[in-house]
Amino acid sequence: MRAEIVSVGTELLLGFIVDTNAAYLAQQLQPLGIDLYWISQVGDNLGRLTEVLRRAWERSDLTIVTGGLGPTEDDLTREAIAAVLGEEMRVVPELEQALRAYFAQRGRPMPERNLKQATLIPSAQVLPNPIGTAPGWWVERDGRLIVAMPGVPTEMVRMWTHEVVPRLLTRLGGGTIQTRLLKVWGIGESAVEEIIAPLIRSTNPTLATYAKSDGIHVRITAKAPDPATARAMLAPAEEEVRRRLGEAVYGADDETMAGVVGQMLRAREWSLATGETTTGGALASLITDEIDHPQWYRGGIVAPTGADLARLGVDPDLVAAHGLLSRPVTEALAGAVRRATGADLALALGAVLGPEPVDGQRPGTLHLALATPWGTVGQSEIGFGNTRVQIKGRAAVAALDFLRRWLLRADRSSAAGAD
Amino acid sequence: MRAEIVSVGTELLLGFIVDTNAAYLAQQLQPLGIDLYWISQVGDNLGRLTEVLRRAWERSDLTIVTGGLGPTEDDLTREAIAAVLGEEMRVVPELEQALRAYFAQRGRPMPERNLKQATLIPSAQVLPNPIGTAPGWWVERDGRLIVAMPGVPTEMVRMWTHEVVPRLLTRLGGGTIQTRLLKVWGIGESAVEEIIAPLIRSTNPTLATYAKSDGIHVRITAKAPDPATARAMLAPAEEEVRRRLGEAVYGADDETMAGVVGQMLRAREWSLATGETTTGGALASLITDEIDHPQWYRGGIVAPTGADLARLGVDPDLVAAHGLLSRPVTEALAGAVRRATGADLALALGAVLGPEPVDGQRPGTLHLALATPWGTVGQSEIGFGNTRVQIKGRAAVAALDFLRRWLLRADRSSAAGAD
Repeated sequence: MRAEIVSVGTELLLGFIVDTNAAYLAQQLQPLGIDLYWISQVGDNLGRLTEVLRRAWERSDLTIVTGGLGPTEDDLTREAIAAVLGEEMRVVPELEQALRAYFAQRGRPMPERNLKQATLIPSAQVLPNPIGTAPGWWVERDGRLIVAMPGVPTEMVRMWTHEVVPRLLTRLGGGTIQTRLLKVWGIGESAVEEIIAPLIRSTNPTLATYAKSDGIHVRITAKAPDPATARAMLAPAEEEVRRRLGEAVYGADDETMAGVVGQMLRAREWSLATGETTTGGALASLITDEIDHPQWYRGGIVAPTGADLARLGVDPDLVAAHGLLSRPVTEALAGAVRRATGADLALALGAVLGPEPVDGQRPGTLHLALATPWGTVGQSEIGFGNTRVQIKGRAAVAALDFLRRWLLRADRSSAAGAD
Repeated sequence: MRAEIVSVGTELLLGFIVDTNAAYLAQQLQPLGIDLYWISQVGDNLGRLTEVLRRAWERSDLTIVTGGLGPTEDDLTREAIAAVLGEEMRVVPELEQALRAYFAQRGRPMPERNLKQATLIPSAQVLPNPIGTAPGWWVERDGRLIVAMPGVPTEMVRMWTHEVVPRLLTRLGGGTIQTRLLKVWGIGESAVEEIIAPLIRSTNPTLATYAKSDGIHVRITAKAPDPATARAMLAPAEEEVRRRLGEAVYGADDETMAGVVGQMLRAREWSLATGETTTGGALASLITDEIDHPQWYRGGIVAPTGADLARLGVDPDLVAAHGLLSRPVTEALAGAVRRATGADLALALGAVLGPEPVDGQRPGTLHLALATPWGTVGQSEIGFGNTRVQIKGRAAVAALDFLRRWLLRADRSSAAGAD
């Protein structure tokens, strides 16, 4: 099936918004086995929009249009589709009723211009939109398809997932798609690809890797006649990826590094505090993104200079001897934060953010330390990132991963001790 | 001049990357007075790319192509342009020399396939690319233009700015473009537009507003025969915007809210510390994004729970009476942080991040406090944002703006005292 995406809206041509809808849909088409050949953006102009849709109708089996379904004179997607197919738009009484009910529920009168959102052409079926006023169109004629959805991303994603994908799967011969996302930290993308190479050649389930700010994402996608079968196909692939990548896999699907670490701490009833020098709050902020953090996070301290560290009780001679950005000072900060907060564990972080090297250490150099009831452990490593903000963000994830691996090791040694 | 953008690369059709190049170029065309009618993305396929470029050549005065200029077999932009114009690609000795020198400098042999990066067609001139191996093409025939640039954003932006814009300006009748960006906090986009409405109708300089996470951006763009004249045209427009928006304008061009506040503190030789409850480190992190923060920032404390506040000396009865997220507790936190750090000023922040309301306060509610040598001032307000991360980010900017306005008032009252 040859597919094409058309994004409608003058704001795209003014550069006010980036077309993330097209990128989302492009990602969605690949696991469905649909080949995407063209994407285009066109303004709110009936002539140009009709021309673009006519060409799409001629050359593509499936045309996905987003945007231009609003109620104003500038919203012209329905009119353009009707023109391409030479069909007439008519108000559908049931749709009009639903639209009037939508406004009535919100205590507002319906502007009459909204009535065009209750229209269809003979070849179109309605795609319901319970979270907005613009229903979509599923247009089918001569073996070809046009799918028109709203441009608002939340409405588009909901309509795509709940209305369009099931219909497409039926047309593609039935079946369903299930996906599983595994998140990996501590191995680069090409190394991940090499390690799981034999699996990447599989066609069902398919595997693909993506480099993201929170690590490498490995997406496994299975196609099957029903969800249970598809899920059953995912399971052995996930197991094999986990076996090959080991504890570098830190989470799945919506899990975050901070969420995973929080879960581990809560399970052990341990509390955590943080200390940061140059990354000032990036680690604390990543932790407080998690809604359950008050249950395991005892707060943090940011100490940007040697004087601030001295106030916390870090020996100025240590800073003088090793530099603010060093493993010994980071270890001392971890100890000081643990004493100051009374937390079970204290995680400390310092990073060379650049653009200049510090004491011969290049931007991206990280110093990590964890103070525990059994002493303090530290580590220095080279991280990635081109800007101060990128290095800070990745340093914070690296620090949490350092803690996560320490917790895994602690489990193993206590299990060994119990043997 | 009718323009069209074509972005080349199969990775765009797989959804691996979002086409930010097209959005950047779209924003750039508007102030040049060039009308953009079409944007499209096409994969690395000679047939489809040639078809797309042929249509662009027929209907557009200016076609801007990005991507497909690399050395591999998949890089087909040059071949497609040559096919559309019916011209032959030939290796240009000077370009070959430059390319070999590029590799020699890096101590690597040049793969022979790279040679196609040293080619031109008769209608093309070279657009130099000192930061990469792929030079661009400036193609001019029959009064029409094709500009081909690399897809790597840094190389594209450099080539656009240094090579393409000056040539376009000459073609558009000479002249230059100068812009000035003013950043506004504390007034919404539609209110800003209303206040500066008479200026927005101006055609040279033009004014446009953009809603960003750090406030409303007002961009002023002037076109003139030479840079000095263009800058002279910007000045009165900037003055008028500043007069109308007053101290809501916090910065210009590359300035950030934290950078502006840091400058003000450095000028007064005052130091700052921060205290945060729920926003845990977002404010500290915004401050440490600034490279000069060690000169004015004395660090911060994150205290997510009442117990953590109590450890800092905040009265538990106050927390019990008003709730953790309240103005009195935020003021007490500011005072406690000022005492703990010895900073001249301490800024404290708490925000309802959601998704649920807290003590009847809806997500986005902010409590701000500033402890000073002359006492503590506080403020509560409603901020914006749909997610926890958005609310945190905007709350941090709001807190710094609260400090900025206090510093402006302090200047005025000391000036009044001196009178």
